[in-house]
Amino acid sequence: MPNVEVCLSPDLLHLFNLRKKNVVVVDILRATSCMVTALAHDVEVIIPVASIEECKFLQKQGYISAAERDGLKVEGFELDNSPFSYQNEDLKGKKIAVTTTNGTQAITKSVEAEKIIIGAFLNISAVAAFLLEEQRDVIILCAGWKGNFNLEDTLFAGALIEILQKQFTVEQDSSLAALELYLSKKTELLPFILASSHAKRLSKLNIKDDIAFCLQHDTYDVLPIFHEKELRNYKINV
Amino acid sequence: MPNVEVCLSPDLLHLFNLRKKNVVVVDILRATSCMVTALAHDVEVIIPVASIEECKFLQKQGYISAAERDGLKVEGFELDNSPFSYQNEDLKGKKIAVTTTNGTQAITKSVEAEKIIIGAFLNISAVAAFLLEEQRDVIILCAGWKGNFNLEDTLFAGALIEILQKQFTVEQDSSLAALELYLSKKTELLPFILASSHAKRLSKLNIKDDIAFCLQHDTYDVLPIFHEKELRNYKINV
Repeated sequence: MPNVEVCLSPDLLHLFNLRKKNVVVVDILRATSCMVTALAHDVEVIIPVASIEECKFLQKQGYISAAERDGLKVEGFELDNSPFSYQNEDLKGKKIAVTTTNGTQAITKSVEAEKIIIGAFLNISAVAAFLLEEQRDVIILCAGWKGNFNLEDTLFAGALIEILQKQFTVEQDSSLAALELYLSKKTELLPFILASSHAKRLSKLNIKDDIAFCLQHDTYDVLPIFHEKELRNYKINV
Repeated sequence: MPNVEVCLSPDLLHLFNLRKKNVVVVDILRATSCMVTALAHDVEVIIPVASIEECKFLQKQGYISAAERDGLKVEGFELDNSPFSYQNEDLKGKKIAVTTTNGTQAITKSVEAEKIIIGAFLNISAVAAFLLEEQRDVIILCAGWKGNFNLEDTLFAGALIEILQKQFTVEQDSSLAALELYLSKKTELLPFILASSHAKRLSKLNIKDDIAFCLQHDTYDVLPIFHEKELRNYKINV
């Protein structure tokens, strides 16, 4: 059986070998939740970039651009980092460039992987179905917060492992911890996450509605895959 | 109230500021469990060193020496890394030099801390009592396995936080995760840990008895503190 492992922070990624493995990048609050929402609303393509400079470069080339640092929208860019901003008919068919504090960095660090899939609670079943079909080793990469472990990405890892566990080996310590944490808190995810200093910090930005939205399961049946620097919905474009 | 935080791996230690904080270093399997056992059996002093060369240097100066790499005793040294090897009357009053794969590295990386305390399930109440008396911010540093997260050190962190939580703020994501993980598995620590690949790897070394021993709570009332390169039992030597 293939293995499923969890990398709890991008700062631990040097301990993993991504080659020939599928990597699921997750940044629940809020980068990957936004990407899933955008593609569900028929955005044609998303280019995740690591730096604000790259994002500006693509903006000049006509991309609608979104830049976030420390949870705040960077001045001079069109879009912020709230999933509600992507529930917009006007974005249909558009090309978006995006850079965020944690999520886009995690994506650009994963280029050695066989495939890079973007995961969120919003599309968890679509991601799981793809991984079950592929039958390839999986690493779930939690984007965290500036290198730190965070609860919501780890809980997503646990939720995904719960679905995969019958057809995947789960014996890495991080995988077992993520699964157990999710199983013990699955009926009270929102209050558990809101108790953390990380969520409190984000809550100061008035994003409690965002947090509640990002914890919803299977709102969208999209499968964002990052390939040759572009993120597209492979439920449509394959 | 002071804060208690958990650093899940030495490879994440760069994210923490140790100054003016008490750091509890934990390497349940088996470095810190051995140190606690040794001091409980009246070893006078333990010198933890990062390298095998330093350990050899101290051996030549008359220290009884213990070196472990990858879970195995290194040739040419007297002691191994089993707590049972330290339950020995002959070690009374002796000086020991020790280097291990994970635990001693974590100690030597923590020198900026106010105080470095050695924790294990074997002396958890003694450690907690000291931290409650000090009323100073605490970082629990999990030694992990070669930079990787591991279950047993994280579960110890959760167990310690369970005792501290009434007088310490617990809101860092890692602290909340460690506490929750411990609370959900506290009645079945041994089978949970044995399910992990890390424990399976250690089990191949025939150390199942060691693992069961290292999960016992409060076998010893010792408080090992690392000060000026030496580890002593401050229940006696203060």
